[in-house]
Amino acid sequence: MRPKITVVGAGNVGGTVAQRLAERNCYDVVLVDVVEGMPQGKALDLMQAGAVYGHDALVTGANNYEETGGSAVAVITSGIARKPGMSRDELLSTNARIVKGVVEHIVARSPQAYLVMVTNPLDAMVHVALKVSRFPRHRVLGMAGILDSARFRRFISLELGVSPAEIHAIVLGGHGDTMVPLLRHTTVAGRSITEWLPKDRLEALVKRTQDGGAEIVNLLKTGSAYYAPSASAVEMVEAIVKDHKRILPCSVKCEGEYGLRDIVGVPVQLGKGGAERIVEFDLSADERAALNTSARAVRELCDAVDRLMA
Amino acid sequence: MRPKITVVGAGNVGGTVAQRLAERNCYDVVLVDVVEGMPQGKALDLMQAGAVYGHDALVTGANNYEETGGSAVAVITSGIARKPGMSRDELLSTNARIVKGVVEHIVARSPQAYLVMVTNPLDAMVHVALKVSRFPRHRVLGMAGILDSARFRRFISLELGVSPAEIHAIVLGGHGDTMVPLLRHTTVAGRSITEWLPKDRLEALVKRTQDGGAEIVNLLKTGSAYYAPSASAVEMVEAIVKDHKRILPCSVKCEGEYGLRDIVGVPVQLGKGGAERIVEFDLSADERAALNTSARAVRELCDAVDRLMA
Amino acid sequence: MRPKITVVGAGNVGGTVAQRLAERNCYDVVLVDVVEGMPQGKALDLMQAGAVYGHDALVTGANNYEETGGSAVAVITSGIARKPGMSRDELLSTNARIVKGVVEHIVARSPQAYLVMVTNPLDAMVHVALKVSRFPRHRVLGMAGILDSARFRRFISLELGVSPAEIHAIVLGGHGDTMVPLLRHTTVAGRSITEWLPKDRLEALVKRTQDGGAEIVNLLKTGSAYYAPSASAVEMVEAIVKDHKRILPCSVKCEGEYGLRDIVGVPVQLGKGGAERIVEFDLSADERAALNTSARAVRELCDAVDRLMA
Amino acid sequence: MRPKITVVGAGNVGGTVAQRLAERNCYDVVLVDVVEGMPQGKALDLMQAGAVYGHDALVTGANNYEETGGSAVAVITSGIARKPGMSRDELLSTNARIVKGVVEHIVARSPQAYLVMVTNPLDAMVHVALKVSRFPRHRVLGMAGILDSARFRRFISLELGVSPAEIHAIVLGGHGDTMVPLLRHTTVAGRSITEWLPKDRLEALVKRTQDGGAEIVNLLKTGSAYYAPSASAVEMVEAIVKDHKRILPCSVKCEGEYGLRDIVGVPVQLGKGGAERIVEFDLSADERAALNTSARAVRELCDAVDRLMA
Repeated sequence: MRPKITVVGAGNVGGTVAQRLAERNCYDVVLVDVVEGMPQGKALDLMQAGAVYGHDALVTGANNYEETGGSAVAVITSGIARKPGMSRDELLSTNARIVKGVVEHIVARSPQAYLVMVTNPLDAMVHVALKVSRFPRHRVLGMAGILDSARFRRFISLELGVSPAEIHAIVLGGHGDTMVPLLRHTTVAGRSITEWLPKDRLEALVKRTQDGGAEIVNLLKTGSAYYAPSASAVEMVEAIVKDHKRILPCSVKCEGEYGLRDIVGVPVQLGKGGAERIVEFDLSADERAALNTSARAVRELCDAVDRLMA
Repeated sequence: MRPKITVVGAGNVGGTVAQRLAERNCYDVVLVDVVEGMPQGKALDLMQAGAVYGHDALVTGANNYEETGGSAVAVITSGIARKPGMSRDELLSTNARIVKGVVEHIVARSPQAYLVMVTNPLDAMVHVALKVSRFPRHRVLGMAGILDSARFRRFISLELGVSPAEIHAIVLGGHGDTMVPLLRHTTVAGRSITEWLPKDRLEALVKRTQDGGAEIVNLLKTGSAYYAPSASAVEMVEAIVKDHKRILPCSVKCEGEYGLRDIVGVPVQLGKGGAERIVEFDLSADERAALNTSARAVRELCDAVDRLMA
Repeated sequence: MRPKITVVGAGNVGGTVAQRLAERNCYDVVLVDVVEGMPQGKALDLMQAGAVYGHDALVTGANNYEETGGSAVAVITSGIARKPGMSRDELLSTNARIVKGVVEHIVARSPQAYLVMVTNPLDAMVHVALKVSRFPRHRVLGMAGILDSARFRRFISLELGVSPAEIHAIVLGGHGDTMVPLLRHTTVAGRSITEWLPKDRLEALVKRTQDGGAEIVNLLKTGSAYYAPSASAVEMVEAIVKDHKRILPCSVKCEGEYGLRDIVGVPVQLGKGGAERIVEFDLSADERAALNTSARAVRELCDAVDRLMA
Repeated sequence: MRPKITVVGAGNVGGTVAQRLAERNCYDVVLVDVVEGMPQGKALDLMQAGAVYGHDALVTGANNYEETGGSAVAVITSGIARKPGMSRDELLSTNARIVKGVVEHIVARSPQAYLVMVTNPLDAMVHVALKVSRFPRHRVLGMAGILDSARFRRFISLELGVSPAEIHAIVLGGHGDTMVPLLRHTTVAGRSITEWLPKDRLEALVKRTQDGGAEIVNLLKTGSAYYAPSASAVEMVEAIVKDHKRILPCSVKCEGEYGLRDIVGVPVQLGKGGAERIVEFDLSADERAALNTSARAVRELCDAVDRLMA
């Protein structure tokens, strides 16, 4: 009765996803990475931490997929980061190839699993995973909107001196530049954000959110964010496995919702059925246009992936 | 009424200490490191993770000590790792110098703080901190025994297929080779470990524990353990701030206890008074001899530090 | 550094408040009641439960106030329930007299405490506590709106099959019949409740919320709700002691906010300063009228209390 | 993937078991009682508390067993308390009849469930449940030893001023007078309790533990303990459902272990297989004699039950 969760990619994001899952003390975790020793070392360290906290999660580090069979969910974080001088297509084709291999391995051993994609470029990787797995869309989800929303909420929280628990925000669309914050649906204690902050401050926070990933890369210099991304991915895993019926922005294939047939970030009800429904908000003309732009950008990326992988 | 905890050193150990403290949602955390941007980046990432989990800890990243004033506890993790070709004395003098500077800064702004030392070589760094801070011994503690005990308990747990919650162990003495596991006081469900495991298996687990840090370094290749070390340091912080009256093995200056006047790992009752008392176990002749050996090794290191810093 | 919280009244609400606080493992709790043995029995049972869960809160049961000195917060739940044949004034004067005595005892020993009132009729008891304690208004708060909001949110959650975590609601005004749900500010995943539910269903849920306490009394027959009321009171204690800057509907003395000078349920930012600010929403004419009606009803009760206690 | 737990008996113990399970946010709970309205009222109150804490457990109150189908575990707390003038046999036959009916209903709808018995006289009720359910012994367990051990540990904790987390104790045998505390296996920070406390103090704590239930009844006057009993039952549920491999004293049918073929409290490893193994301690002659006495007393009770139910 203890679900198994597989985390592929044992870097900072994957390692912290494994940590968060293990420390809930109700999952067993398999951490897979191609780098020899690394997933095993992190797994051992995590199990030793369990002895301090009294959790007894079995965390298995592996360089192959043997132990992943029967996973309830697989969180896929593997891939490379864009390096100076690397073209966009080079990044895209490399990560598409990596994700393709990972998904094939996962699907072979866990044909009933839900897939939570974290690798960038996110929406394109959801496309790859959908295609390779042949899973129905409700079992293939991408993590981006929860993170973007969390950043936006935290910036508002710090600006106003109010707990983030009182702030609700949903960010649609693609990850990063093309994200679409729904300002009319962003509230502090239930009151619209526009009543709390002047327009220019609000725009500054939106801009900062769009650049949220880059801001941390610029600070860290040798890496990118992992605490909030891992928390966001775990939120998705928990909502599915524990059937929480949360409504969270996830990257998922639209089939007519919002007038789209693309993979894009939309509010999704997550429960034991995975993406149980897509919640449709009444968008303003501007928001709709921005979402369409976002969807178009993803579509182009997906087409590029298809060409590169053909 | 929300205690401030300062963490010095924003590497993997310090960053994970900050994460664990922030996610308890009852502390504010200041994360200090000399590397520009890095503590700020991790602090920001941690606060954004708070928006996912609903915690509202303020985490401040800094390259100086201005924000650390009035800290209840400072956890000091800064220092370098031993590199190939580096002599023992070189490591010792470098880290002693780093710790000296850190402690001076902390003490100047938080004269009532408790110090939890994590930098290696651990017992020698406790010596430096005691000397530089001029704090009474009950406010200067080193983290080693909790980690060694946790490793030992986890190995037993995995060997027997029993929850680590049922396994009690106390490891005295120095960190690593000279650690002294008290086998007679190591129990599984209250029954001595010697009734659960044959002598050779038990010896193998002791050996593996002594090499526990190296095992993970060998696996990770480019770093050392941080999940269990950070959990161990946080256990100490919590026991002090929340007055838990835990009895945990810590590195502390003995003043006659166990017949010693050295800094060495012994069972300490931790509460709002810091090291409120040292608990004296009835040791076997072998254990006493091993503890004396351990103490002697620390004494030599401390003398070396004193010479190097004179 | 471990705050002391006093809970007065060891019935089901008070006992469960003590349980919730003890199980957080960061407070010591004093549980006071006039009934001999009862607070001592619950305190002992709670401490024994701590040994199962590993929490070490000291819970002291007492029939007097000696142990309450230096409390950070006092939660006051004592009072009688209205019995058949009892006039409204009889209930009012009895509970006013009880609360007066309790507050005098608390204030004498904990002059810096925050008071969280739970006894009914709630707003009138906040009036008594303010008057007797001579505390500034930011240290005297009543618990009602959090409970009413929680009930409303849970009814919506069950109706829609969505996690209550996605539902935000604020209920203003008095407790019960005169409560004022702000429907425009009630959201599911950030979208107004009016887009989720037809008007008649929504009105039915509002009505059910107004009768929420009575619904449970009718089911239990021999008592009233205590799980959600105790959770609501603890939310207030935590927000104050841990400085969470939550914005929660509480009963507090308005001094011009919302055009009122009465004690009434309004959104309050709770932090280490207690009621740090009252958040003013832009009300519709209907909502404003309802809030005024609610305030007037409280004012009459307060006048009645003053007469009865003169 | 969200396990269903049924709790039968919605009094203080059953209600608090339901509360603790619901607040973990990973179970759905069905609370059954013959009293009309009461389980429904408590269920509603618990779900409303969930809206404060953000948990979304479905708690269903019922007067019949329709909703219990497919339960992973059933916790059975129903039964009457002994009243003045009631003979032992009268209590025994009444509760045996109640438990028989409950078990028949549970088994019919949840043939794979684990049964956790709480009704007194405990060991006799385990006997009834075993007989009526025809379940193998590893699926029928009684809660007594965890509670007795918790009380003993807490008394030691308060006596020494040490966290209960550092105290390990196992109490074997029947519940109450015939319980058998294993003093040689009772440790504080791994050191035998006999090194911490003089003999007379220790004996006083043993005596107080044996009378632990009565002490609380005498204080409460109108009821018995429920915070620690409910925590103990939930510990068993969690260990089974989350496969924790805890070793906890439970009432279970011995089949040769400890030389017995009776139902009696012994250390049991709890995991996904229920009572996965009985751990045999090396007992002193006195302990063995006491355990035999305890077993004999249970056997007589079971014979009496068989006669009464024939």
